[in-house]
Amino acid sequence: MKKAIVSSYTKGDGLLDSAKKLVQCDYTVFSTGGTYRFLHEAGIAVKELADLTGFDTLADQRVKTLSPVIYEAILSPSLREDHPLFGLKVVLVDLYPFPRAGEFEKHRELIDIGGVTLLRASAKNIPHVLPFLNSGDLMDFLDGAEISPESLAKKVFSFTSYYDSVIASSISASDLRIDHSAIALEKVCEASYGENPGERGEVFSFDPSGLCRLKVITGKKGVSFNNYYDAWIAYEAAGGRAKPAAAVVKHGNPVGAAFADSIEEAFEKAMSTDPVSAFGGIIALNREPGRELVLKLREHFMEVLIVPALSEECISLLFEKRKNLRIFIGEYDEGSPIISMRGFAGTLLVNSRIPAAANYKIVSEGNSPAPSDHMIDFGISLLRLYTSNSILLIKNNCVIGAGFGFPNRIEAMQRAILQAGDTAEGAMLLSDGFFPFADSIEIAAEAKIGWIIQPGGSLKDKKVIKRAKELGIGMMLTGERYFRH
Amino acid sequence: MKKAIVSSYTKGDGLLDSAKKLVQCDYTVFSTGGTYRFLHEAGIAVKELADLTGFDTLADQRVKTLSPVIYEAILSPSLREDHPLFGLKVVLVDLYPFPRAGEFEKHRELIDIGGVTLLRASAKNIPHVLPFLNSGDLMDFLDGAEISPESLAKKVFSFTSYYDSVIASSISASDLRIDHSAIALEKVCEASYGENPGERGEVFSFDPSGLCRLKVITGKKGVSFNNYYDAWIAYEAAGGRAKPAAAVVKHGNPVGAAFADSIEEAFEKAMSTDPVSAFGGIIALNREPGRELVLKLREHFMEVLIVPALSEECISLLFEKRKNLRIFIGEYDEGSPIISMRGFAGTLLVNSRIPAAANYKIVSEGNSPAPSDHMIDFGISLLRLYTSNSILLIKNNCVIGAGFGFPNRIEAMQRAILQAGDTAEGAMLLSDGFFPFADSIEIAAEAKIGWIIQPGGSLKDKKVIKRAKELGIGMMLTGERYFRH
Repeated sequence: MKKAIVSSYTKGDGLLDSAKKLVQCDYTVFSTGGTYRFLHEAGIAVKELADLTGFDTLADQRVKTLSPVIYEAILSPSLREDHPLFGLKVVLVDLYPFPRAGEFEKHRELIDIGGVTLLRASAKNIPHVLPFLNSGDLMDFLDGAEISPESLAKKVFSFTSYYDSVIASSISASDLRIDHSAIALEKVCEASYGENPGERGEVFSFDPSGLCRLKVITGKKGVSFNNYYDAWIAYEAAGGRAKPAAAVVKHGNPVGAAFADSIEEAFEKAMSTDPVSAFGGIIALNREPGRELVLKLREHFMEVLIVPALSEECISLLFEKRKNLRIFIGEYDEGSPIISMRGFAGTLLVNSRIPAAANYKIVSEGNSPAPSDHMIDFGISLLRLYTSNSILLIKNNCVIGAGFGFPNRIEAMQRAILQAGDTAEGAMLLSDGFFPFADSIEIAAEAKIGWIIQPGGSLKDKKVIKRAKELGIGMMLTGERYFRH
Repeated sequence: MKKAIVSSYTKGDGLLDSAKKLVQCDYTVFSTGGTYRFLHEAGIAVKELADLTGFDTLADQRVKTLSPVIYEAILSPSLREDHPLFGLKVVLVDLYPFPRAGEFEKHRELIDIGGVTLLRASAKNIPHVLPFLNSGDLMDFLDGAEISPESLAKKVFSFTSYYDSVIASSISASDLRIDHSAIALEKVCEASYGENPGERGEVFSFDPSGLCRLKVITGKKGVSFNNYYDAWIAYEAAGGRAKPAAAVVKHGNPVGAAFADSIEEAFEKAMSTDPVSAFGGIIALNREPGRELVLKLREHFMEVLIVPALSEECISLLFEKRKNLRIFIGEYDEGSPIISMRGFAGTLLVNSRIPAAANYKIVSEGNSPAPSDHMIDFGISLLRLYTSNSILLIKNNCVIGAGFGFPNRIEAMQRAILQAGDTAEGAMLLSDGFFPFADSIEIAAEAKIGWIIQPGGSLKDKKVIKRAKELGIGMMLTGERYFRH
């Protein structure tokens, strides 16, 4: 006679069916507490573990299964035949979830001790005992699906590591140095491929408030690794704006971004920054587009569209013409996480930015009117999104030129100005790092740039500021660097 | 009378001292197995838990503490006074480590069930019970250090999530879909700051075979987030070469790379690619530099130097002149991990590359001799390191021009050719993506490029190949794309 221990927070058809199936397959089913009552009341032949352990519950119901009788059965490499749980083969523990954004004080009663131990002990002793995290996997197994004991064990330890990591995150204490930890990951999807075809790409969520909140609708193609990456930049570039805004992204850099009085106008402006590079780009809008704009949008070849909302009709219109499109739909979240990571060669770099109040300082008045705070904020939030070294030119609430990803500042400058052409006149120029020399200021003057916004902090700041004054360019120091790689 | 449960795989002075201190502080100390014997033989008054649980060990010594007597004491919000463990306050469990590159079958006996449960249960019930992962933290606590119960609990759940994640990684089964998991992280250091000053940067190792193996020696400044990132690219750019090789990196892109018959020559060549951008760069050499080369090296302002080995004398020579330098020292590891990650906006992208045998196809013979396999391999392994879109020019085993981080291929082409100048003649050109149009081939012809190595796969491949043939340029298709963002 085979035996099973069953403990499940989900009390539904899945549990009922798998318990019935266990009985059909000649298992004696043992349980405790709520699971016992649920199964018993449903008429299933289930036995109480308390009859074996000699106690019902202890410590305010916190101790039910932590008993040597049970663990001798689960952990023995070869159990003696006269043990009351001789023949124990299946352990099903479906844990009550600990909320991902939970708080320890508020949610600690949810922390499962006994269930986790049942699972871990069973996973240690496969194949003598098989651990199941949910009744679905158990049903598959009872129905004869080929499930290796190793995969059950891997699933258990993956889950318990996730579970404990979520609990750890719920505790905000920081007075002890923590050398060993883990990042809890919830799988979102398998990307159609990795950064390149032939590579594997997996998408996980490590914070429920982030991009993964957005609903993704795909046409014929899945979402690729690069789609997600670009979608992030586009989402950020169009987000956080009081006014309607649009952005176009290619290879992780905005190749167009603008805000305007209407979303239609913002889109047209964003597309005008670099119409050539916008081909095959990722487009984000911070307002729901109407039918007319959707008809315009679908004329552009784009990989991804990101919008706060979209009608069923508009979705159909888009897929009618763009069968491979992916649409990300979701309201913009101002409190999005500011943790970024880079992982390579066994090393994970974790960066946390603590948003601080701006503290800008005008160091040269120049000959043109100073840009508004709103314009500067728009510029700086965009500047954070370009790969370093970057120079950004903004005019009329629209990016008119950008140089990024350059190993030196001069070239970034030249590319931004070249792209802007004659429109550079009177524009606001932003730099992600300070100017090491005054040469860039001269290039800006030639292009008739009105204002320069830069971090400051160079050894040559004095010379740089002096040159700006001489050349009639306004200059503002922000005291903050904006590198991104 | 207060009570403590102690179980430690480390049997040393730390354990002895903390047990003595517990006794001094009026704790009754309980223990089992090896820890009991160790303390008992050292003359410390220690009691056996078996006297309370009523059993010594079960299931081949796997069950010692999984007893309701113990867990009633640990988990009760308010323990009855007649309980034998009434007054239990401290639980010290120092777990035997599960190896990070362990194999489940080989190491499963190390998986701790009882100890992990003691820790987790205690952490759930702070401040009634305080869990300690090592005798050091316990000593600090007994010595009166201010340690919050919350931080002890956070440390426990961080550790158990790490521990279970390492176990999960040791199991290679893949027949079940895993939705919840975690990445085990070992803290390497706190970076001096994040990607920018004012941001926090933390460095973790997620694979022991990676970059974190290298020994890091710092001068006056710590290692920054960007130092690690650049060090990775430099390490890869100089690694995997049969011959002496050198690389210089700025902002995550190689601004110089070469191999040669001697490391001295390789360094000179790598520096010649872009002497301007090399200022303040990250330099990697795949051979130990001698005294003379070190004297040359220290004339360059560099942020980081990466070498397989370095004499004490040379280290002193370097720091004498470059007080802020960071030196990474370690042999190159050919089997370095090929997993890369991008984390942002709550989303983690995990990319796995499976190295495959090259399968190059010549589609145009051209007028110049075909580059050697060795040259092509050198070029492609470098090409993988540039941010997209990228074009790379190589001649005489040295990078002579590179365009990278551009939103379109033409500009990358133009920058690479502009940088190479007259030396472009006869050079090998590599592209990280296919050519969408034949226009790039014409630009290459004007610069007298000898060979083009590219993935192929464009709708216009035929036209592109035809144009290469007409213009006398050799062309090879690799069938593989090399994007990096």
